[in-house]
Amino acid sequence: MTSLFSPTLQDGIEALQCLPGVGPKSAQRMLFHLLSHDRAQGLKLIDALQRGLMTIHHCQRCQMLTEQTLCQCCQSNQRDARLLCVVSAPSDVLAIEQTGRYHGYYFVLLGQVSPIDGVGPEEVGFDKLKARLSDCGLEEVILAMPSTVEGEATAFLVSEAAKAKGLSCTRLAQGVPVGSDLSFVDMQTLSCALTSREQLDLS
Amino acid sequence: MTSLFSPTLQDGIEALQCLPGVGPKSAQRMLFHLLSHDRAQGLKLIDALQRGLMTIHHCQRCQMLTEQTLCQCCQSNQRDARLLCVVSAPSDVLAIEQTGRYHGYYFVLLGQVSPIDGVGPEEVGFDKLKARLSDCGLEEVILAMPSTVEGEATAFLVSEAAKAKGLSCTRLAQGVPVGSDLSFVDMQTLSCALTSREQLDLS
Repeated sequence: MTSLFSPTLQDGIEALQCLPGVGPKSAQRMLFHLLSHDRAQGLKLIDALQRGLMTIHHCQRCQMLTEQTLCQCCQSNQRDARLLCVVSAPSDVLAIEQTGRYHGYYFVLLGQVSPIDGVGPEEVGFDKLKARLSDCGLEEVILAMPSTVEGEATAFLVSEAAKAKGLSCTRLAQGVPVGSDLSFVDMQTLSCALTSREQLDLS
Repeated sequence: MTSLFSPTLQDGIEALQCLPGVGPKSAQRMLFHLLSHDRAQGLKLIDALQRGLMTIHHCQRCQMLTEQTLCQCCQSNQRDARLLCVVSAPSDVLAIEQTGRYHGYYFVLLGQVSPIDGVGPEEVGFDKLKARLSDCGLEEVILAMPSTVEGEATAFLVSEAAKAKGLSCTRLAQGVPVGSDLSFVDMQTLSCALTSREQLDLS
């Protein structure tokens, strides 16, 4: 006997492994959970995924994921049109929104530029970003890419494009995370935090 | 703005959280992965889940998950009909099969008996097990439940039923895991291992 699992079970276990962070064991656990305890939820999941894959695409203006032509942020006219925050993943938009400190618009690159993986500026939607940078009223571009080699390379390209349009360009501050113990902060972060130290306002 | 995510995105993120071990952050990551990089795999996943939920049910003889009337194990006549291993989850069948040391049949209880959660013997398929224990040729019942309060309670019920039919009843040995350092083994396990110590054959 090659496998005790029936072909349909095997297919399900293999298909679930397309999800990030899911290996054979978790896939097996997930499928058995759905089949043994939660068939109704499983049908709901199928329906939700189906609707998602059929209707969700990228916002025509900022490339955020949405089922409408323009995402909710781009549809709003309550936001500060002078600010554009460039991120490299849809989840980063949520992270920044949750701070409640940013009220401008976003542009979501479809990943980070990484020539070694064959991901050039075109693949992440750089042409659309360049067009967006020409929008009237825009004053400042905020770079919010991850602090990695690919992130820095992407940020560099965006900053060059922003400079070419005469826009001001800023990036998220790097430094010691709030609430963290200095001894747990890595050397590079601490070095950045020292270099970018801020004047205390003692008045 | 209440949420930057469109309703369909929200639905997908919520639906994915029905999977065990998936919280809001992983669900978001999974959905974004499918939408941004892996739509073809997503459609495959939907298809596999759909086929699974529609066609997979419990084997009529041993309650293993299968899309046929009898699972592959119960269909086989190459196995030792004197042995019946009782487990409390389909994945445990795979774990035991992978050892390559067991060649009898299985019976898969639909979970463990836990009166406090309203799970009685009927809910886990005890009636079917009792009928199975009457099959001619059966000699030994091997208890392979987890070593927890619910597992022990379930094992006790199974052993009583086996005794009533005049069958021999064994359970998996408890002791020090192979390859583990004694100082990392918990007190109860070590105590079991001492009690069940084995005579060395020095001949």
